[in-house]
Order: sequence, then structure tokens, then C-alpha cells
Amino acid sequence: MSLATLLNDNQDSPALAPHDRARLSQLFKRLSERTEMFLGYPVAKDFACQDLSHFLSLPLNNLGDPFAPSTYQVDTREFEREVLEFAARLLRAEEHNWWGYVTNGGSEGNLYGLYLARELFPKAMVYFSEATHYSVSKNLHLLGMPHIMIRAQKSGEIDYEDLRETLRLHRDQVPILFANIGTTMTEGMDDLVKVRQIFKEMAIAESYIHCDAALCGFIAPFLNPRPAFDFADGADRISISGHKFIGSPIPCGLVLAKKRHVERIARSIAYIGNLDTTISGSRNGLTPLILWTAIRRLGEEGFRERVQLSLSLADYACRSLREIGVDAWRNPNALTVVFPSPSAKVRSKWQLASAEGASHLLTLPNVTREQIDHFVADVAAGH
Amino acid sequence: MSLATLLNDNQDSPALAPHDRARLSQLFKRLSERTEMFLGYPVAKDFACQDLSHFLSLPLNNLGDPFAPSTYQVDTREFEREVLEFAARLLRAEEHNWWGYVTNGGSEGNLYGLYLARELFPKAMVYFSEATHYSVSKNLHLLGMPHIMIRAQKSGEIDYEDLRETLRLHRDQVPILFANIGTTMTEGMDDLVKVRQIFKEMAIAESYIHCDAALCGFIAPFLNPRPAFDFADGADRISISGHKFIGSPIPCGLVLAKKRHVERIARSIAYIGNLDTTISGSRNGLTPLILWTAIRRLGEEGFRERVQLSLSLADYACRSLREIGVDAWRNPNALTVVFPSPSAKVRSKWQLASAEGASHLLTLPNVTREQIDHFVADVAAGH
Repeated sequence: MSLATLLNDNQDSPALAPHDRARLSQLFKRLSERTEMFLGYPVAKDFACQDLSHFLSLPLNNLGDPFAPSTYQVDTREFEREVLEFAARLLRAEEHNWWGYVTNGGSEGNLYGLYLARELFPKAMVYFSEATHYSVSKNLHLLGMPHIMIRAQKSGEIDYEDLRETLRLHRDQVPILFANIGTTMTEGMDDLVKVRQIFKEMAIAESYIHCDAALCGFIAPFLNPRPAFDFADGADRISISGHKFIGSPIPCGLVLAKKRHVERIARSIAYIGNLDTTISGSRNGLTPLILWTAIRRLGEEGFRERVQLSLSLADYACRSLREIGVDAWRNPNALTVVFPSPSAKVRSKWQLASAEGASHLLTLPNVTREQIDHFVADVAAGH
Repeated sequence: MSLATLLNDNQDSPALAPHDRARLSQLFKRLSERTEMFLGYPVAKDFACQDLSHFLSLPLNNLGDPFAPSTYQVDTREFEREVLEFAARLLRAEEHNWWGYVTNGGSEGNLYGLYLARELFPKAMVYFSEATHYSVSKNLHLLGMPHIMIRAQKSGEIDYEDLRETLRLHRDQVPILFANIGTTMTEGMDDLVKVRQIFKEMAIAESYIHCDAALCGFIAPFLNPRPAFDFADGADRISISGHKFIGSPIPCGLVLAKKRHVERIARSIAYIGNLDTTISGSRNGLTPLILWTAIRRLGEEGFRERVQLSLSLADYACRSLREIGVDAWRNPNALTVVFPSPSAKVRSKWQLASAEGASHLLTLPNVTREQIDHFVADVAAGH
């Protein structure tokens, strides 16, 4: 058979050599095992993508803005819009006054949010707490935005006194607050109502609040009391990860913003017949289907129950560690349990991140009591 | 069965409702049909990802730098490195003096390349031709880099005289050239040897050349004569798309850079036990496997034959259009055939991009003579 024929028919395209197939099998086996030993990263594992694997045969591309027509028609933007609509309701965005898209992950969402803020307020000052994810200072450096780091409380929540005192010295500049809705290490949440109150005290007329809700965007709406974090509480823009609490085999996320902000930086582009409002241009068409599937499978009720289940597991993990004498703690209503870093062997076996002598575990969906018991036994035995 | 049990076992997780399954089936059917009518975008369709679909059950994440150890172990970074090694050989990178990673697509690769250039030469001036993809001025605006647009020849290649004259007026600033190795509309290529020669004439000691080889990075190495575009020809950094000539159901790409440049902007990050040298942080673990599979299936010889086949199809398409009186043309050794825009109906049916009265088709792998005949007949019939 000629190469021309081969290349004209997917079914007969050159096959992988047996050696290469074997390598993929070994990889799959090893990664499956490593997935079992997985408490240290905020990654749900209960996604079910079986219904989607045949989409890997198509050249999917959600080119450009999900709400504008495009000449590229092998896309899943209709499903993407439904994902965004679900999130907009959950995050209490004002009807017809929001916009968003599915991103490649939290960092892109944050970069985009800060870029947007800079375009709106070119001379603004950015404030964020010292508990903020490292990618934020990377993004601020990339964007060339002046910024001040604010102290954090032990919980990871921003220190409002320090924020107030610092704002007082910069009343000539529009403040952009980069708020954490669940910090990386302790899942601390900044309270937007308190922040808005401080802005009011200072008679600040213009401001912008970007919420990094990577982990907690789909958790916080179901907590009681409900944290002050969403559009109704004063957010201008919210970024959420798709591969964390929702769950996805491919890192992804979504951003939502007030529509009128976005229109300010849109540029009409002849080439794709579309508004150039996204960072990426070519965009993943599979991840919107993955998120759509999760949302349709679970619905709001499913997410609510998932949150309850994760909270009770976090409580169980924290109590179990304390019972063997480990000084573990967690914030109220957090899935993150913080404790002094165990031995390097335990950290590596359970893939635990570690900073300044502390490690954490996260009881995301698909973590089991058995895994926690196993982990606690390893810590107790010191290996 | 309780929700707790459901959530602890993938196999039994809440199923999609029949209505939702039907929607996915309809979507798949529609997209498969639209994929057949597909000549206007540079997207190969002969990828074969059947061997990879079970990886959609794992929380893959190639967190951070592909060459540094990471505590997150559900990754495919070993396979990613092999993809990069294959590309580094093809693009004649100096051994042990290159670095790279698999990106989410061409725009990210270009943004990263320009960011790198800015860190190395903060006061530099960026030059690029008017035939450059629109995302580049978006990226330059985001990065706040001063830039000058240079005229392009009809072929899409940069106008060297205009470049020379413009450089002459800015000899006090390090030049950063954003070179196109295959422009979006006509597949024009800038010649790095000519550019380096101009730099030499001006006694320019420090400079930086970023190559956007989105489409042609895996084509140009197999052309005769070989275009002057790679590391041996003077590139400092090259960005290539994975979903264009190589083929992938998910937009992706790869960047390669001289290693010593990258080390300048690396920041050591405690959180992930890794160097923060990528833009994204969390990174797709599936796309490296897709690229790896393509490379292992085809090998260098397969890519060479693929290029020949695509070129002969481009020649066939160009001749067929001219035979019915359409003023079609293509650059030497280009897969892109340019012609006056046909009717809106034809443009929409065949998903043709269009700018300034011109459209183009691209004979990427999996385009057939039958499709071209069909398209030419549509143009001839005016519908």
C-alpha cells in the first residue's frame, strides 16, 4: 500500500511499533499506580470521559471567542457556553452582563484577569496577600504591573489591617485586589465584603477585584455560611480550575468577567471572523466537553453532595492525624488539612507538596477513607 | 447505592442522561461531517489517537519544567522530552544547549518567546512584517514591548530593504526580529541568513531572532532547497504548532530555545519543587503523548514523504483552479494556495478564512484529490 493511500485513510495510518505500544502500556500502568497514591494535590479523580474518547479523532478547535460566530466549524463552543452559563448562575453573575471562556488552567485565567484589569486601569496598583500562588507574581512581572504584597493571617486569609494601612498610603492609585478564594497551602479565603468595606472607608470610587477561585469556585457556593467571594459580593472577575474540584484528565479552567469590562479590550480580527478576546486564539475543544459532562452528570445537587462528602473526609483525615499526635489543622469548611512535613519518603510516596516545613493533603472526590488510613499509618510508622 | 459509594468508584459514577448522550452523538456526527469539508485551515487530520483514549481516565499533569524533577508523578514528561529531542535534531539545535516544552499552541509559544527576549534585552525594539499573525501584536501589547511593523513582499516574506532602512534609524537599540516561517495567509518565509547579514552590515553585536514556525517547523527541514530558518541558521528560539502539520485533536505546540537564554529567567519555586520556566504551570499531559505517537508512527522518513505528498497536492489544487480561470498562485514549496475569495456560500461550506479579498486553501495531510475536485467544481459553479 502506498503512503498516499495510507495517509488518506485514518484506519490504515502507519501503526505504532509493538515496542512503542508496550511503552505506552507500561506508562499507563505506572501512572495508574501513581494515581492511587495521591493525596497532596487538589485533583479530583472521579471524572468519567468514556463517552468522549471518540472525539479524539476530530481536529477540534474552539478558535476565538465562544460567543462570536467563527468560520472554523469543528468546534464545541455551544457546549462551552452551557458550561459557562452553569458557572455564571452558580457565581451569581448579573444576567446578560457576563462573559467568559474555558481556559487551559488557572494561570491563564489569572494572567487574563490581570491583563484585563491593566487595560481598564493602566496606572493601578495591585495588592495580593503573601499566601498567593507564585504564578501571580510571575504574571505581574510579565504584565509589568506595580504591586504590593500584603501580610496574610495564619489561615491564609489576607490581613485586612495591613491592607487598610497600605491602601491609605496609595489613595492616588486605583486598587486592583487579587483575592484568593482558597489559597494553595491552607485554602484560606479573602472576604470580598470586608475588602469592599475598606474601599468604602477610603472613599475609593474605582477599583477592581479579581478572584482566584482555582480550587473553591465550585465549592464555596455550597458552603454554609456562604463565603463572600462571587459577583454578587463584588467580584469583577473570577477564575476557576477545571481539573481541581470538578475533575479533568487535562488541565483546564474557566474565567468569567463582567461583560462591559471585556468589551473595552476586544479587537475585531478579520482573519478568524471573530473578536480577539481570549488569550490563546486556538483553543481546546475537548475540555469544554469534559466539563459539560461533569456538570450534566452531577448537576447542582451532585456538586452540593460532593462538597459535603469531601468536608467530612477532611474532618476525618484531620482527626486521624491528631489522634496519632500529629499537629494537624484545617480552616473551617476546608478540604485542605495542614500538618508538619513528614519524612521525605512519605512525602514522595504520597506526592505531597511542601513549603516552609508544612505539607498538606486534600480530600478531593475519589479520595477514600482507606487511603487516609493507609497514609496515617505510614506517617505513624515514619516511612 | 449511596453517593459516597458512587463517588468512590469511577465505573459507577453517575451516568449521563440519555438526552445528554444523544446530544453528544449529534455533536460528533455534525463535527465529523464538518471535518470532511475542510480546506481552509492548516490542520492535518491523519492523527491516530486510538491507542491513547484510556489515558483520559487519569489526572495527567506535566506540572512545570519537563527537564526538572517534580513531586507530581502522574505525568508524561519522559515522552514530552523525547518529542522535544526529535524536534531539536530536526531543527539543528546545538547539542546540550537547548531547552523546550510542549505548549497549548502557537500563541503561547510566541508569547513565551517574546517574554524571554524582553527579559534578556529589556530595552530592545521588536521588528516583524505586516504579514505576521494578529496574535503577535496582541502579545507585544500584553508584554509592553516597543515594536515597528516592516513591509512585506507579495509572497509574505519580509521586505529586507525596509528592514535595513528601519534598523539604520534604531542602531542604539538591540533588535528582536519576530520571523515568520510560513505566514498565515501565503506561507511566506523570512530568510534568517539574509537577516543576519543585515545585522552584520550594521555592526549589530547583540540581537535576538524568534521564529514563528507554527505551520512549517516540521515541513521546512524536508524542503529542497532547505529554507534558512533553524538554530544552525541563527534562530534563538523556535515555536511550532502541534495541531497543524503534525496533527492533533487538541491544539498544542512546542517551543525550543537556546538553553542559556532560558536559565536567565528561571525562578526556583519551592511549591512544586521545580523551576518555573514555563508560562502555564499546570500543563497538558495528553498532547505530548499525541505528538510522541505521531513521531513514532512516522519517523523522519514519514514526515519527508508527507511533505512531498502535500506539495504535489498543492500543485494539483493550484493548477486545477487556474484551469477554470481562477487567478490562483502559491509560493515555491508552499502547501498554501491563494486565490480571490469565492462566494460567501463557498467560503462557508469549505470553512475558508478570508482577508482583503483573498482566501486560501491548504493541502495538509488527509486532504484528497477528490476533495479538491469537489471544491474546484463548487467554485466553477459559483456555489
